[in-house]
Amino acid sequence: MLSLQRKNKLTIKEKLSMKHIVDLSWTDKVAFETDMDGHKVIIDASEETGGSDLGPRPKKLMLTALAGCTGIDVIMILKKMKVEPEAFNVIVEADSTEEHPKHYYKMKVIYQFKGKDLPKDKLQRAVQLSEEKYCGVTATYRKAMEIESEIRIIE
Amino acid sequence: MLSLQRKNKLTIKEKLSMKHIVDLSWTDKVAFETDMDGHKVIIDASEETGGSDLGPRPKKLMLTALAGCTGIDVIMILKKMKVEPEAFNVIVEADSTEEHPKHYYKMKVIYQFKGKDLPKDKLQRAVQLSEEKYCGVTATYRKAMEIESEIRIIE
Repeated sequence: MLSLQRKNKLTIKEKLSMKHIVDLSWTDKVAFETDMDGHKVIIDASEETGGSDLGPRPKKLMLTALAGCTGIDVIMILKKMKVEPEAFNVIVEADSTEEHPKHYYKMKVIYQFKGKDLPKDKLQRAVQLSEEKYCGVTATYRKAMEIESEIRIIE
Repeated sequence: MLSLQRKNKLTIKEKLSMKHIVDLSWTDKVAFETDMDGHKVIIDASEETGGSDLGPRPKKLMLTALAGCTGIDVIMILKKMKVEPEAFNVIVEADSTEEHPKHYYKMKVIYQFKGKDLPKDKLQRAVQLSEEKYCGVTATYRKAMEIESEIRIIE
């Protein structure tokens, strides 16, 4: 993910290790809870599969990770380019295998901008910079599967 | 992810397509919001990098997806084996590159069980079943990087 600030504010420890950690605690039936950057996150299965639906399914978080990572990049880059859409959505569609382990084998990222006279070349450049230079989630997933993308503009 | 029920409750549409979708809406500065399985999820950057810290960072959600997916599997399998730990945590440690795109290149999953006289062979079997047969997040990440795991038992 791109940072809007030029100076690297990582601590010395983070600079040396660049290690990220999450710790999920089992709380109830099959639900888990964790603290992420000071925010409580709950993961659970649906009631149909033995859970209590206290939070979202874990695998789909892979899609939110990708959409959030590239979305933040793009909106930060557009801000630097003095481009501000009226609305902006990042939609990720993922195809899953039907056999165990059921896993995503293909994804499509749709960047949907709303606004009048938006400069298409700048939108394309911002998406390209995220996809090729900044988004670490894209970089990992691309090693595992095909990821395509599309830019949609709504006036 | 394993289901506790034997019958597949997917709708006909899901059976045919097995497509999962997320749609994130840009809300403020660089924050995004989405609905996941009926639960509101907010993603944001830290204040130091131009965000408002309204939610967790997106890339780290990759770790929560992995921990949640395999954690739910393991606790479901242990339930079938009539094994119930007093406490159970899934910790994921990930190493990130220091250069853009900053991405995870190695992960370690620690399965930490608390309980007296827990059957180590069943814990190992449950973890193995998730890693090799059920967890779709592990299946994808393994195509992109090395993932090691460890079982810790606390009495």
